[in-house]
Amino acid sequence: MLVYIAGSGAMGCRFGYQISKTNNDVILLDNWEDHINAIKENGLKITGDVEETVNLPIMKPTEATKEADLIILFTKAMQLPQMLQDVKAIIGKETKVLCLLNGLGHEEVIRQYIPVHNILMGVTVWTAGLKGPGHAHLQGVGALNLQSMDPENQEAGHQVAEMLTEAKLFATYDENVLPNIWRKACVNGTMNSTCALLDCTIGELFASQDGLKMVEEIIHEFVIVGQAEGVTLDEAEITKYVMDTSVKAAHHYPSMHQDLVQNHRKTEIDFLNGAVSAKGQKLGIDTPYCRLITQMVHTKEDVLNIK
Amino acid sequence: MLVYIAGSGAMGCRFGYQISKTNNDVILLDNWEDHINAIKENGLKITGDVEETVNLPIMKPTEATKEADLIILFTKAMQLPQMLQDVKAIIGKETKVLCLLNGLGHEEVIRQYIPVHNILMGVTVWTAGLKGPGHAHLQGVGALNLQSMDPENQEAGHQVAEMLTEAKLFATYDENVLPNIWRKACVNGTMNSTCALLDCTIGELFASQDGLKMVEEIIHEFVIVGQAEGVTLDEAEITKYVMDTSVKAAHHYPSMHQDLVQNHRKTEIDFLNGAVSAKGQKLGIDTPYCRLITQMVHTKEDVLNIK
Repeated sequence: MLVYIAGSGAMGCRFGYQISKTNNDVILLDNWEDHINAIKENGLKITGDVEETVNLPIMKPTEATKEADLIILFTKAMQLPQMLQDVKAIIGKETKVLCLLNGLGHEEVIRQYIPVHNILMGVTVWTAGLKGPGHAHLQGVGALNLQSMDPENQEAGHQVAEMLTEAKLFATYDENVLPNIWRKACVNGTMNSTCALLDCTIGELFASQDGLKMVEEIIHEFVIVGQAEGVTLDEAEITKYVMDTSVKAAHHYPSMHQDLVQNHRKTEIDFLNGAVSAKGQKLGIDTPYCRLITQMVHTKEDVLNIK
Repeated sequence: MLVYIAGSGAMGCRFGYQISKTNNDVILLDNWEDHINAIKENGLKITGDVEETVNLPIMKPTEATKEADLIILFTKAMQLPQMLQDVKAIIGKETKVLCLLNGLGHEEVIRQYIPVHNILMGVTVWTAGLKGPGHAHLQGVGALNLQSMDPENQEAGHQVAEMLTEAKLFATYDENVLPNIWRKACVNGTMNSTCALLDCTIGELFASQDGLKMVEEIIHEFVIVGQAEGVTLDEAEITKYVMDTSVKAAHHYPSMHQDLVQNHRKTEIDFLNGAVSAKGQKLGIDTPYCRLITQMVHTKEDVLNIK
């Protein structure tokens, strides 16, 4: 297979690196000049559980020309449409696209560029860090679930899962991946936006009685909107999952805190609480907590003059 | 009249100072040791539009013994019940109590200590600052509206209004003061809590399209709960008032920002958005914006370990 990693940040580097160890070809795509130059000049440096430097081709999305067998999407949520636009040249009739972005609403975007026949949606608990241009830091193990969005083309999903498992990325074909995607989005929607707004760690949020009350109401909104969209969601199970995650990640500032507070970057709020608010509005379901949180995060982006 | 100022911060000092210039007796009450000692030793220093130092008696609330003709309440909202408890010795059958605190829900508290016959509720646009212990800085002019809560005892309100106007505090007897109290609370409830949470000026909040959307929904919740309580509130008029205030005060960080962000002090949120949320709950009116904002402010207080 020829596999493109569309968005070669920390996670993209992990996937590209691990797949390059199999009998498949990998090309990294990214738009960060320093990152591209570092990898072209010195290779991709891996530290953490293993230490090595590997030569992997990297280029800008618009420079790719060879038709892809598989494109793994790992952009930031708001960069997804531009990326799909930029890789048009490598999308053939049989090119599969696997979306591993966080958040909700991506399938609708991808369908504007890719026939549903070739779309695979997934969710992963792998993690990765970027220490600087061309330097990925990889620790721990993970797994991922994926599913073909076209029930008639499950075979494509199974093939990709097999390839990823060969790359020790441990992919499972999931007959019902949407509840897992929603559950992860719900974890992010309860912790990321609130910790970013309150400038606190996950543990500090969950140590507050009022913090817990907010979390409960946010989870409830995710669940009722997801259910109305036909996704099987168990509120008690998700709540337990959120609580378990909050204990494991107690000392962490979530990624939206890093974006908004630490780096003054645009957040992915529109694909978390904002997506639930927008979907709820279409369905006639009021989601005031998600709506207000989205407005507050956008207001804070405005205050910080983040475009 | 013997007038006590119950809570002699910036505004209490202004009122005490101006009343002392009339043919009435004033005693300041406060619990801040440094402030009491400074005024006992050197008098109350006034700067700003006038510069002078005046000798005014000051003591702790529990030390006051002479029966009051009038007690003007100027505590922080959460200190009100303790203050009313502490001044029991000076409350006689005819002692009037004028409440000029910001926020909602104070009348219910005062009624637990004072017969409605003697309660006057008011709202003021006077401002004042405290430069340090014993030093008030007074600039600009203001006015206040007040009303007897017992329609049978309007005379008491008129007398107090006359005395305050003699002190150049320009008090108007208001046949319907509650809409003014709610309107001021609504201004505070839209700007104070949000600017405190977003760490921004009033102008920055109102320059954001999402900020404006939040403001509109918060105003709406204040209006529907107030109306359900029987208070005449005109949403369009209040919105215009809020917008006008936001222009005048664009460069300011509101007082809750000072409390929460700058000084890590407990906020008055329970008497603004929290009061609307609590009143709404009793009335069966959902106020998710006020509820979530209250929860967020309390969570932030918890994160900052503010008791």
